[in-house]
Amino acid sequence: MEVNGVEVEETFAEAFPIKVSRILITAATKYWAKVAAQEATGFGTSVIMCPAEAGIERFANWNETPDGRPGYYIQICNFSYKDLEDQVLKRLGQCVLTAPTTAVFNGLLEAKKQFDTGYKLKFFGDGMESETQILDRKMYSIPIMEGDFLIEESIGAVEGVAGGNFFIFGDSQMSALNAAQSAVEAINKVEGTITPFPGGIVASGSKPGANKYTFLKATANEKYCPSIKDKVEGSMIPKDVNAVYEIVINGLDTDVVSEAIETGVKAAVTLPGIKKISAGNYGGNLGPHQFYLKEILK
Amino acid sequence: MEVNGVEVEETFAEAFPIKVSRILITAATKYWAKVAAQEATGFGTSVIMCPAEAGIERFANWNETPDGRPGYYIQICNFSYKDLEDQVLKRLGQCVLTAPTTAVFNGLLEAKKQFDTGYKLKFFGDGMESETQILDRKMYSIPIMEGDFLIEESIGAVEGVAGGNFFIFGDSQMSALNAAQSAVEAINKVEGTITPFPGGIVASGSKPGANKYTFLKATANEKYCPSIKDKVEGSMIPKDVNAVYEIVINGLDTDVVSEAIETGVKAAVTLPGIKKISAGNYGGNLGPHQFYLKEILK
Amino acid sequence: MEVNGVEVEETFAEAFPIKVSRILITAATKYWAKVAAQEATGFGTSVIMCPAEAGIERFANWNETPDGRPGYYIQICNFSYKDLEDQVLKRLGQCVLTAPTTAVFNGLLEAKKQFDTGYKLKFFGDGMESETQILDRKMYSIPIMEGDFLIEESIGAVEGVAGGNFFIFGDSQMSALNAAQSAVEAINKVEGTITPFPGGIVASGSKPGANKYTFLKATANEKYCPSIKDKVEGSMIPKDVNAVYEIVINGLDTDVVSEAIETGVKAAVTLPGIKKISAGNYGGNLGPHQFYLKEILK
Amino acid sequence: MEVNGVEVEETFAEAFPIKVSRILITAATKYWAKVAAQEATGFGTSVIMCPAEAGIERFANWNETPDGRPGYYIQICNFSYKDLEDQVLKRLGQCVLTAPTTAVFNGLLEAKKQFDTGYKLKFFGDGMESETQILDRKMYSIPIMEGDFLIEESIGAVEGVAGGNFFIFGDSQMSALNAAQSAVEAINKVEGTITPFPGGIVASGSKPGANKYTFLKATANEKYCPSIKDKVEGSMIPKDVNAVYEIVINGLDTDVVSEAIETGVKAAVTLPGIKKISAGNYGGNLGPHQFYLKEILK
Repeated sequence: MEVNGVEVEETFAEAFPIKVSRILITAATKYWAKVAAQEATGFGTSVIMCPAEAGIERFANWNETPDGRPGYYIQICNFSYKDLEDQVLKRLGQCVLTAPTTAVFNGLLEAKKQFDTGYKLKFFGDGMESETQILDRKMYSIPIMEGDFLIEESIGAVEGVAGGNFFIFGDSQMSALNAAQSAVEAINKVEGTITPFPGGIVASGSKPGANKYTFLKATANEKYCPSIKDKVEGSMIPKDVNAVYEIVINGLDTDVVSEAIETGVKAAVTLPGIKKISAGNYGGNLGPHQFYLKEILK
Repeated sequence: MEVNGVEVEETFAEAFPIKVSRILITAATKYWAKVAAQEATGFGTSVIMCPAEAGIERFANWNETPDGRPGYYIQICNFSYKDLEDQVLKRLGQCVLTAPTTAVFNGLLEAKKQFDTGYKLKFFGDGMESETQILDRKMYSIPIMEGDFLIEESIGAVEGVAGGNFFIFGDSQMSALNAAQSAVEAINKVEGTITPFPGGIVASGSKPGANKYTFLKATANEKYCPSIKDKVEGSMIPKDVNAVYEIVINGLDTDVVSEAIETGVKAAVTLPGIKKISAGNYGGNLGPHQFYLKEILK
Repeated sequence: MEVNGVEVEETFAEAFPIKVSRILITAATKYWAKVAAQEATGFGTSVIMCPAEAGIERFANWNETPDGRPGYYIQICNFSYKDLEDQVLKRLGQCVLTAPTTAVFNGLLEAKKQFDTGYKLKFFGDGMESETQILDRKMYSIPIMEGDFLIEESIGAVEGVAGGNFFIFGDSQMSALNAAQSAVEAINKVEGTITPFPGGIVASGSKPGANKYTFLKATANEKYCPSIKDKVEGSMIPKDVNAVYEIVINGLDTDVVSEAIETGVKAAVTLPGIKKISAGNYGGNLGPHQFYLKEILK
Repeated sequence: MEVNGVEVEETFAEAFPIKVSRILITAATKYWAKVAAQEATGFGTSVIMCPAEAGIERFANWNETPDGRPGYYIQICNFSYKDLEDQVLKRLGQCVLTAPTTAVFNGLLEAKKQFDTGYKLKFFGDGMESETQILDRKMYSIPIMEGDFLIEESIGAVEGVAGGNFFIFGDSQMSALNAAQSAVEAINKVEGTITPFPGGIVASGSKPGANKYTFLKATANEKYCPSIKDKVEGSMIPKDVNAVYEIVINGLDTDVVSEAIETGVKAAVTLPGIKKISAGNYGGNLGPHQFYLKEILK
């Protein structure tokens, strides 16, 4: 199969269930909403060694936020609701309450699972806080040094998807990297998804476990490492390929992750020097979600 | 005392010792160095509820990095060397090793305390890694999907300073906020310092403990909250002030923190609508470092 | 009348017909499309002394451009079709043909007026150029140092609107400025409009002609200058106002300019410290288009 | 000769004298200084069809500007002092006077040639303007809607250099492009130079005149066009090269242009996939300045 003249391997991405909270952060201007969203989702690439997976989902326009201000939806993900709730509280308390001009709204109003994060954070007001309302949302208003911080009482969470992915093979590192960047920028427009790695991109895709250092949970995926393609038996790196990047996608459900894979691949193959698209899986044994490139891109 | 016609209160900032690691991240272009630096220092405003305090120190020019590429110095801070080492390993392993085109160098070569972070991360190579050298630095080269990741064997750490600070009082929230932003941008040029809060700014400066909710470690500093100035006895908010921002500065030593306070205040008072500069302390009982505004700005 | 608690003066913006070309610039990534769009629309605030009025209209997503790459729509405006055609040729030839990875598409396919700008620029190929097609668009492919530059044969133009506007009055300069910035960012989402001044904002709104220096076509609008409000008879600056910014909007027709005014005002009044919204006119004698704030914002 | 393992051709860049004005634009924050600098230097890649060549030289720190605010030095260039003075007046009057929070200072105090641009722009004040001083600089203060606009009386100009250049050959378009971007970013740190093309880069380097369409002043430099390398006799494109970018540098004198070439080449060759560095000349017949790569890079 080819897309825009680029070979797409007949394989699938294997993904996992994860618990996801979705939060809308608004601010006086786009810049300040972005600053808070970035700080709150940092150190959040993979739960292997980060306390959460997190990312900015998309920009929210003036006319679609409860307070008429610009905002960003972010997602924070973890394996258990307990760990997720803890991370939502800490990240909103330390990185958004402290950020200039922000307000916080529930991004999953209809989820069954609701954390009382706003209720907990109101205690920062030390008795000077009050209840208020924006549209029909129950908010707390907490006096702070810049004025008043507003946060909705509850933050919703659902079971979503982690680890949706695809691989971009390039003739040069810069071909693959620019294609990866364009893919991530395109995925930024897909509602409900995030790309939690730095700039949305994984430069060092891993395999579970190890061949040699068996004390490690994950190590380099040597069959996809171009610099050692001549030394590794079964290397998956074609002759004319000198770099591979992986795009990892988390999302609220499988539909949006599918759409993100489709959007990202189609953006990536518009760049010159892209030789192949593939995806990562563990033979289908580990993750219950399988995203077949052929079906998604047909 | 006045600077540029703005009143400076006769008070001091009170600060604490903290352990600091300093790391140089280089990349193919400025953009990718920044992406990695941002991810690695995110969720790092305050150790109250973040796993570390962290921030981008400054841009490093092409001609001053070991590999001739653009870079950023970052700092990661924690109270104990043990917790710091753990955070350095996790943040570099998850947010820089995974980021496109990066390399990692020791930013404190002469520190006595050296973590073997590079040595530990090399195991990600699962036996395919190798030793190499850039100038006289001992590096590990780890094959990854984009090519090879290079990291120096050791990352240094010293006892530095946390919590250097000053307050900006504005006639309107936007006056104070833009002054705070300009202050942070100026401090970005001061070698050896970071401003770990979102965009470098604290919108919700706190006091230790609480008046009412005594189960909390820190709550709103109600005497500096403009929206309740008429309700709070002893409010420090003058009549013509409607917002206050705090700039918090960490650094390698007291000299650079002093310089950052001076630079930041001088930048802040060039903005229209700034009414007063002050600083935060706990009466001198908690932190061994005291930064007197009058001396710094004389 | 009030919007979000902010007084809106009962007045109207007076605007003029202008000829407008609309061009879609695509590139390998968003960054490079933006670079070309910015260079091509620079030095283009007002035809008083610029060779054209020009601005970036909006981002065009991957799935809505003919070549599947990210892009920006720009507009270039002038009083006559002749001057406009000249500017379109020069700006595309010097600022887009020269820019990395760009392609150029007609942004007004159905306009009656079509300039043969692509046909003229193909001669840069010095005989090595060729005809090609993207979807059903007739393109020229010109070999250049980076590869091939693709440009559509024709660029359309219509009679549009120049000088739609509104004024933002703030209690401080920074209140008004940040509100102006947020207004411009919101208008960026309104299809068919541009805000041609620097960052979309006019800091120095003018009146036609002069009181004293009658050799000038336009001078400071002294009734709206806060720093001389006590010296100018008939000053329109209220006591509590210390700065005014004007947002000037050009667009393809009066409907989109109306929508941009509405969107911009609604974004501006969400900022703290905004005291009043007004608009600029010349008594209705000069411009045939009148935008009544009361109707637009009802 | 090789730099960082990349072949450097034994050739020279040929450059021309040009008249250069240098202006310092300060503003409340870096962002607003950049906005004004970008607008004022837009549509300014080449005097072939732009009214001037112009670019942002470098950021000016808080402690080095007369008003203690952040700023950018820009350069505006033209062949005659008369045309240059006209462009300086128009670009400052339309793109900086109108931009939020800006002030304008002379960037060439010691030049013999001084334009009275500030004196001319003061008439915008329509009689309400006044004289003032910042440090020992003679300024005019013009009341405008945002407050007061300050501009120094004179703007200096010197005979500088246009068309300093080098070529970057890449194995793929993205290798060459990212190397070009990194080169431009590095040159941004070289005092006294600008790179006037979009993002600092020329994607479509030209030769003077034409082979076929002799009515044109400049056409594609077909010997450096990779997509037709097999059709063009005497093509300079090696087998393994698929894209070439040219960096064009203007500057105040030959020393700074030399330094910019050195800095840019050294940054470019750190990127993967760079195959060769060369430079453009016309056999030494047209331009009096010759920059020999071998000497500059030795």
